[in-house]
Amino acid sequence: MNNLIKLVDESLEKFLPVETPEDLFKSMRYTVLLEGKRLRPVLCLEVCRCLGGKLEDALPTACAIEMLHAQTLIHDDLPCMDNDDFRRGKPSNHKVFGEATAVLAGDALISFAPQVILRNSKNLPADVLLQVLDDFFTSAGARGVIAGQVVDIESEGHPETHSAEKLDFIHDHKTGDLFRLAIVSGARIAGADCEKIAEMREFAHNFGLAFQIADDILDVVSDFETMGKTLGKDAQSGKLTYVSMFGLNNAKCKLTCLLEKCDVIINKYNSEILREIVKGIRKRVGI
Amino acid sequence: MNNLIKLVDESLEKFLPVETPEDLFKSMRYTVLLEGKRLRPVLCLEVCRCLGGKLEDALPTACAIEMLHAQTLIHDDLPCMDNDDFRRGKPSNHKVFGEATAVLAGDALISFAPQVILRNSKNLPADVLLQVLDDFFTSAGARGVIAGQVVDIESEGHPETHSAEKLDFIHDHKTGDLFRLAIVSGARIAGADCEKIAEMREFAHNFGLAFQIADDILDVVSDFETMGKTLGKDAQSGKLTYVSMFGLNNAKCKLTCLLEKCDVIINKYNSEILREIVKGIRKRVGI
Repeated sequence: MNNLIKLVDESLEKFLPVETPEDLFKSMRYTVLLEGKRLRPVLCLEVCRCLGGKLEDALPTACAIEMLHAQTLIHDDLPCMDNDDFRRGKPSNHKVFGEATAVLAGDALISFAPQVILRNSKNLPADVLLQVLDDFFTSAGARGVIAGQVVDIESEGHPETHSAEKLDFIHDHKTGDLFRLAIVSGARIAGADCEKIAEMREFAHNFGLAFQIADDILDVVSDFETMGKTLGKDAQSGKLTYVSMFGLNNAKCKLTCLLEKCDVIINKYNSEILREIVKGIRKRVGI
Repeated sequence: MNNLIKLVDESLEKFLPVETPEDLFKSMRYTVLLEGKRLRPVLCLEVCRCLGGKLEDALPTACAIEMLHAQTLIHDDLPCMDNDDFRRGKPSNHKVFGEATAVLAGDALISFAPQVILRNSKNLPADVLLQVLDDFFTSAGARGVIAGQVVDIESEGHPETHSAEKLDFIHDHKTGDLFRLAIVSGARIAGADCEKIAEMREFAHNFGLAFQIADDILDVVSDFETMGKTLGKDAQSGKLTYVSMFGLNNAKCKLTCLLEKCDVIINKYNSEILREIVKGIRKRVGI
C-alpha cells in the first residue's frame, strides 16, 4: 500500500511540474500534492494489477483521477460553495493563492488531467484510451461529480426537499463517480472483459457509497485533528446526509452491510491492498 | 455567414439538451446559447471547408470550442474575477443562477465540450481525433487561455510590471489560443498537410491578436449599448492592454497591419466568409 502511495506521489510530481505562469502551477500543485491517502489512484492501480494489467499502463489515468479529485476539493472549498478554510489540515487553496487563482487552478486541472492520460498512454489500444477518456469526461462533468454537487447544494437548508432518492443521487455522483471511474478505468486498462468490468462497477458502487456514509458519520463523531478539515458543518448547514436522513445507528448498519458486499467481491481476488482499504474504513468509523 | 451561424446555433442546442440536474444544464445553456457572433465555430467550419473538408466533420469540434469559450466568459464574469454583471447585454451567469452554480456550470463545460468532440467525431481518423483533443486540452488549460488569464489578473493595477512582452503573452493566450484552436482544428479535420496547418496557425495568430487589440480599442471608444457589456473598465482597473501600453493611435496602426497580414493569407482561398469576418473587425473599430 505504501509503495503504491509513494509511486502515485512521485508520478503526480512528475506529471505536474512547475511551468509558466508559476503561480498558477503552484496553486494546482498545492492541492494535488497535499499529503493524502491517494485512495482513488491506488484503487485504479490495484484493480488493474488484480485483473492482470501493468501498473505503468494505469499510472497516468490514476494520477489524472487524483488531479480531478483535487480540482473538486479546490472548488468545493471556495467561499461561494462550502466556504472551507482548511483541507487535509492545511489552509485551503483560495486562502493561500486567492479566490481568482483558485478558480483558475481548478479549471486548469479539469483539462490538464485528461491530457496526462492522452499523452502518456501510448501503450493502450485506441479504443480503450478513448473509452477511458469518455468515462473521465462523464465522471468529471455535468453527468458526474458536478451533478451530485449541484443537487447537494440545492438541498442544503431545505429539509422539505430531502428524500432517500435524492440522497442516493448525491452520494452516487458526488462521491461515487470518481471511485467508479478509478476502479472501472483500472479494469479497462487491464483489458478486462464486460463481466469483470460489471463486477468492478458493482464493487465501486458499494465502496463509494460506504466511503461517503463513513464521511457523513465522521462529520458527526470525529474532530478537526483527526480529519484535517472543519467538521460538524453538515448538521449546522442543514445538509442532506445519510446520518441526517436515517440516524447514526442506521448509517452504521448500512455501512457494515456495504463493506460486507465489498468483501465478497474482493475475496475473489488476491489483493491485500483492497482488503486493507476496506479495513481502513471500518477502523476510521470504529465498526 | 448567417447560414453557418444558424447551423452552429442549432447544433449547440442539439449537443447540449436539458438533462438532470436541470438548474445546472440551464446555467450551462444560458451562456452557451446567448446570441453571439459565433466567430470561433464559424472560423473552424469555414477553414475546414476552404481546405477541402466536410462541414459536418468539424461541427462537433466547432461547437465544443464555443462551449469552452462560454465557460471562460462565465468564470471571467465572477465576482472574484472581473466582477461583471452583464454579458452580451444580458445579466451574467452568476447574476441569474448564483455564484455556486455558475462556478459548477463553467467546470461542467470544460469536460462536456471535449466529450462532444469524442462522441460525435466517429468519421475522423483516430490520430486526427486525438490530436484535436490534445490541442483542445492545451488551449483550454494552464498552457492556454488560463495562462493568459492568470497573468492578466496579476498585472492588473501593477503598472510597474507591465511590458510589451507580458502584453503579448496575455493576448496570445487569453484571446489567441481559442482562435488558434478553432482555425487549426478546422485545418486538421480537413486533413490539411503540415504546410497548410502552419499557414493557418499564422493566420490565427494575426487574427487573434487583431481581435484583442480591437477589443482593447473598443473598451475605450465604444459604449454599453453597442458592446452589451460594461466598458471603460480596463483603464479604471489599471489593466495591461494594447491601448494602455502603446496609445490609441499606435493600437489602430498595429491593428491595420495585422488585418492586412490576414488578408494576404485569406486571398489565397476563395472564402467570402473569412473576408467578411476580417472586414467586420475593421468596421467595428472604424478603420
